[in-house]
Parts: sequence; C-alpha cells; structure tokens
Amino acid sequence: MPQATPPAFPPLNAERLWARVETLSRFTLPDMPWTRRAFSPLFDGARAWLRGEFEAAGLATRLDAGGNLIGTLPGRDAARKPIATGSHCDTVMRGGRFDGIIGVLAGIEVAHSLREHGVQLEHPFEVIDFLSEEPSDYGISCVGSRALSGQLTADMLAARNPEGETLAQGIARIGGDPSALNAPLRGAGGTAAFVELHIEQGPVLENRGLPIGVVTNIVGIRRVLITVEGQPDHAGTTPMDIRRDALVGAARIIDAASRQASAASGNPHYVVATVGRLSMTPNAANAVPGLVELTLEMRSDSDAVLDAFPETLMAGVAQDLKALRLTASFTQLSRARPTDCTPLVMDAVQAAADQLGYASMRLPSGAGHDAVYMAPTGPIGMIFIPCLNGRSHCPEEWIEPAQLLDGTRVLYQSVLALDRVLRGA
Amino acid sequence: MPQATPPAFPPLNAERLWARVETLSRFTLPDMPWTRRAFSPLFDGARAWLRGEFEAAGLATRLDAGGNLIGTLPGRDAARKPIATGSHCDTVMRGGRFDGIIGVLAGIEVAHSLREHGVQLEHPFEVIDFLSEEPSDYGISCVGSRALSGQLTADMLAARNPEGETLAQGIARIGGDPSALNAPLRGAGGTAAFVELHIEQGPVLENRGLPIGVVTNIVGIRRVLITVEGQPDHAGTTPMDIRRDALVGAARIIDAASRQASAASGNPHYVVATVGRLSMTPNAANAVPGLVELTLEMRSDSDAVLDAFPETLMAGVAQDLKALRLTASFTQLSRARPTDCTPLVMDAVQAAADQLGYASMRLPSGAGHDAVYMAPTGPIGMIFIPCLNGRSHCPEEWIEPAQLLDGTRVLYQSVLALDRVLRGA
Repeated sequence: MPQATPPAFPPLNAERLWARVETLSRFTLPDMPWTRRAFSPLFDGARAWLRGEFEAAGLATRLDAGGNLIGTLPGRDAARKPIATGSHCDTVMRGGRFDGIIGVLAGIEVAHSLREHGVQLEHPFEVIDFLSEEPSDYGISCVGSRALSGQLTADMLAARNPEGETLAQGIARIGGDPSALNAPLRGAGGTAAFVELHIEQGPVLENRGLPIGVVTNIVGIRRVLITVEGQPDHAGTTPMDIRRDALVGAARIIDAASRQASAASGNPHYVVATVGRLSMTPNAANAVPGLVELTLEMRSDSDAVLDAFPETLMAGVAQDLKALRLTASFTQLSRARPTDCTPLVMDAVQAAADQLGYASMRLPSGAGHDAVYMAPTGPIGMIFIPCLNGRSHCPEEWIEPAQLLDGTRVLYQSVLALDRVLRGA
Repeated sequence: MPQATPPAFPPLNAERLWARVETLSRFTLPDMPWTRRAFSPLFDGARAWLRGEFEAAGLATRLDAGGNLIGTLPGRDAARKPIATGSHCDTVMRGGRFDGIIGVLAGIEVAHSLREHGVQLEHPFEVIDFLSEEPSDYGISCVGSRALSGQLTADMLAARNPEGETLAQGIARIGGDPSALNAPLRGAGGTAAFVELHIEQGPVLENRGLPIGVVTNIVGIRRVLITVEGQPDHAGTTPMDIRRDALVGAARIIDAASRQASAASGNPHYVVATVGRLSMTPNAANAVPGLVELTLEMRSDSDAVLDAFPETLMAGVAQDLKALRLTASFTQLSRARPTDCTPLVMDAVQAAADQLGYASMRLPSGAGHDAVYMAPTGPIGMIFIPCLNGRSHCPEEWIEPAQLLDGTRVLYQSVLALDRVLRGA
C-alpha cells in the first residue's frame, strides 16, 4: 500500500541511467536497428564498453566460463552468497533498445549509487550481463544463464551456427571456457537471491495504468510440430469432393487452437497458444496442398494445461480431419516447465513498490527470462515495468525515462529489502 | 454408341508410338525425373530428336516465329486451311512423361500412319509441338500457342528469367523470331480445326471406367492475392483476447473458400477453388502472425461464378474478421476466360469414339491447354484419356500403352471425320 509519508527516494542518477541506455543503443547494425546479436563483433564492442561502465560503477568485473559478464560489490560479510541482479544486452534481429538491456543497466545504476553514497550491503551485490538470452545463431537461447546453473548440455554446446562454428567455439571465442561447463558454475544455494528488472513485453500494465508488476511465475513453454498429410493434386482437375487438401485441415486446427486457448485463458490459468510457423508443399498456386507443418506453441503457468493442450486439440478436430480424408499427428519440439517466483523475492519487490508509493499488480511472465535458469541457484523474482503498446522485439519497443526510473527505484529498494530480510533483520 | 460391328481399326503402329514416348522420356535431368524445361539444353536436344521423328513420319517441318515446331502433310486441296493437332513436349520440374507429350507423339503417329498407308486428306494436316505450354522460367505459360494467335504481349516478351534473359531473347535463342510477334502468326480462320489429345489430369474418367473423354470446355482461371492484416506480437506475452492474429483470420478464409467451392460445384457448373500458396510474417514460433498472404485460385466453366466468387467469400467472413480485429482485401493476379470447345469438333470426336466402340463422356477440362490459345484461329476440341489415379505433374504420372492407343485411334478417326465434315462430304 502507498504510504502516507513517502520515504526519501533512492539516490539514483536518472540522467546517467538513461544516457547509458542511449549509448548502448548505438551498438547496432546501422541499417537494421536495433540489432546487436550475441557473438558478433558489435556485441564484442558493446561488452567492452559495458565492462568500462561496470568498473566506473565500482564493480569488480570478470567474465565467467559461460561468457557471462559479472560485476561484484563486496558485502560486509564476505562469507555470504551474493544478492544478484541482471539480464542481457543482446537483441533479436530488428529488436529494441530496452528488452534485457535495462535489467543490466539498472543493475549498474543501483551499484553505482550504492557505492557513491557509501551504502554497503551485508551481502555481496552482483550485476550480471548474461550471454545470449535471445535465441542465438546456434539455435540456443539463455546460453549464459543455462551455463551458470549447469543446464547447457553437450548437445547444445555442439550446436552449430550457419557458418559451422559450434556454440562451444563461440563461447571460447568471446572469452568463456566451454571445457568448464560440464558442471554447474554455481550450485544450489549459490545465490542468496536473484531479482531481474525487465519490460513486460505485453500490454497488461499499460492497459491498467500501473507502473510496476510483481512477477509471480514465468510460464512454461511447450512447442509441438503438427503435421497434416493429404495429397498434392492438380488444383484445376481435382474435384472438391475427392481432394485431400492438407491446408484446409490445417485451417481447422489453427482455428481450433485459437478458440481452445481463448476459452481456457484465465480459467484460472494463464494460457496462450499460437501457430506462429507454417510451411506447406507444394506451395504453388495451381497445386492442392499435400502436406502442411504447423508449429504450435503453448504457454501457461500450469503444467497440466501444457500436458493436455495438444491432445485435446487434436481430439477436437479428429472428425473434421477424417471427413476431409486427412491424417494428422504431432511431435514435441521442446518443453520448458513453468517456473514459480520465490515468495521471499516477490514479497521484497512488493514491499519496495509499496514503500515507494507505486501501485502494482502481480502477474505472470508470458516470456522466458534468464531468471528461469537462475532458479536452481537460489530464490528468484522479477520486476516488470510497462512498455509502449506492449510491444517488444521490434524497433518500436519503447519506455519513457520516468518508467525506467520507477523500475530502477523498485529494484534498488528490493535489493535493500532482500539484504535486510536475508540477514534476518 | 458402340457399334455392333466394329470397323477396321485405324492402321496405327502401337509399338512405334510407345517407343517414341520412351525415347523422349530419356531427355530428362537425370537426378530429377521427369524434368525437361523449355529453353533448356535438354529441351534443345529433345527438339532435335523430335524434328527427326517429324521428318521420319513424312512431315515437312519448320520452326515458326513463336518457336513452335510445325510439321505438315500436304492436303489434296492446297488452298484449304490445315486440320491441326498437337500439344507440348516441355515439362514442369519433376513432372511426368505424358502430359502434353502424347498430344505431339500421337499426332506424329497419325501422320506417319496416314503417309504409310497412302491416305491423303483433303486438308493439309499439321502436327504442332507448341513452345513452353508449362509456366516457363520467364513466368509465362503457353508461349508458343499465345504467339501463334497473337496473344503474346510486349510485356510478356519483356519478362525475364532468373538469369535476366528476356522471353524475347529466349525465343530468339531457340530459333524463333520475336520481332514478328507483334501480330498474330495465324489469324481468325487460319486453322480449319484443331483437336488436341491429352491426359485428363484428373480422376473422373478413371473413376467411371471410361477410356475416352470429349472435352466440352476449358475452364476459366482466376487468381487473386488475399492479404490478411493483423499485428505481429510476442506469442508469450500477448493475451488471446487482444491479439490480432492474421493466421487465424486466414484459416477462416481457407475453410470458407473450400466450403463455398464444394457447395457450388456441379450446381450446375464446374467449380474448384484452392488456396495453394501461403506466406506469412514473421513466421516464427514465438511470434503472433501479423500478415498473411494467400493465393486463391478459382476455376470454372462459368465466368459469372469467377466474377462473384472472391467477393462472396470475403463478405461471408467479414464478421469473423472484424471480431478477430483483422482487415483483409484482395487484388487480382490473373484471369483467363472459360473457352468453349466447338460443337463441330466435339461432334467429330464423339462420332469417332462411337464408331470405334469406345464408351465416352463429355467433361470440362479443369487444366489450361494450348487449345485455348488456338481458339481464335478456328474451331477447337480436345480428347482426354484417363491417367493413373488422376495424377499429373509428378513423377508418378502414368498411362498404359493401351490407353494411349485408344486415344490415338480416336484422334485418327476424328481427323478423318473433320476432313470429311469440313469439305462438306
């Protein structure tokens, strides 16, 4: 709840924070803003600049074996595990200037401010720029956070980019040590708490006019490949009543998936389902489509929803497909379980927002984040701020400087609250 | 009706006919049977062989300005316009050994047999191998037959293949004269009659167990590009109730087009509609589709059906699309009017089939053919024979030698019947 008497705001330097956002945004492919792909020369340049900013903020900086850039302020009790924050500074192609980035730069500003004002925490304080949270050119996302908690498998390390380089070689090239990644770099309990500031990437906070979101969980993501098989035929000479048009069957599945997710959404779980990729053959104007492949992605905070969704979908369209003389099946492409945020961290964020007088709500994250892969190392939580029209991963992605300051204030207060709670004060 | 006493069969050499099919099939890309693209070196080789076969059959052979290979037997009355037959020897990629090809080779066999047995028609008899009936690498189909009747426009002649060569340059390269194509090579009345033998490319004759089809008309073909516009969004963070998923709208259109064509088919017209091409952006597993483009192809013997189809379709889904927060529109890509076969030629084919004791039916052609572009030069008609499972434009395309002989016999008798009827006998 907002307090009647607002406390002194955290002593942050809003101009310095925003200037860092603007400077980092200049590390982009000039003709394709905003593009700063992990493992690229642009990324190297941004990392070099970032290391300088870490050091200017007083952070002792190192690159770990997983290619994560980690800066540390010492705590009063050197035996304690660190309270950590951070996110990532890589982007998708034609992405934005804030997704991930503000989580790193807000962390630097919190450290810079703590140091400037002589505030030392009981715990060490870490700021982490995780390597390649976005799907890398090797096809793997959250490379650095997976590596940190020992979830980067040998298969992943052997994945190749279009030039034929393996992910292991890429990690070595940017200064990591892939030979050290067969075990967690940080075990269970290795982090006292992790809290990540991020743009919401959705419209909920903006629609409700709320400056702060307290993330309750990060949804599970299940992807399946649905194959619809009919028969390619001449589109001129094959009468309608004997066609086996795979695209007509695919259309029924696309429609049914959307209806099923809409009906399930909020009852009581977060549920979204998307057919985002489609390929068909022959894909010619004068040919009846013989084969269609759909990638169906489902996200939910409920593992049970993810379990049942594709089977329910396919059972619902089975009669339709039979009448269309089609066969269809699905195979799993990937599955990530839902990750709950830790009440300890959620409560600290909530208390910080309340203390600073920010209205907030609790909400799930529909996007994946590095926090998921930090969860095995200790308590985790996330702070969301709204972004313009809920858009992200596009050049139009935008937040106002004041919104970034709101989130960074809450991050600062959350870190202080966690330091207090975790030391038993 | 089958006659009680079958007449002497036309004196055709079935072995020679089939051997020519087998020999021509060897002009194929070896690793991609059966591929013999017009304008390719393989096509040149096939044409050289074909010219030899024309000459062996006694045909006086020339290449016209449109790149058509034309062989002629003189008629008793040199003043008469020719009775013509023919088709094309080019194929699609991974096409078949019969589509088009048998129309040329059956024509050669008819000429060969007439000459061998000393039968001279009143009319000159022509066999034509039309240039590039299949969509060429320049994007234009029926190149030779369009050229012959003056329907190859300057725009078409300026179209370029992926190597940058214009169609005009391609025609010149294979021995034609593009500078002569600004007027019809053959005007109205320039052909006494044209009759083309072709595989059905559909399943109707096979399903009914009929050896011969008398083609009534060649359907009109209309293609439109339908654009469905929504908004690309993050598939994880955008709740179902505010999405503008263009693919869900496209699915409604695909389904509605199939239902609409099925309902209209045979009431009383031939109607098929196909969404054969689809492209979407972003086309990524984790992105809500923002834009989908569909190519809708409609074919009918009724111009009125082609007129109304897309408007009726879009009106039918308008409420759905509005509810989905989508906009959609269509633009015309191409339109070819339905072409009726001439009763004179249909009756000659029917009489020939009846005389030879072949059961037959009248049916429309759902595929386009060179006969469409011959129509401005005189009466036209087509003879269909069944093909295995109605398949064409694929390596599995197949007919039995006996089926080819059936069709060639009917072609022979049709030519004789036309020669008789046209001279007023």
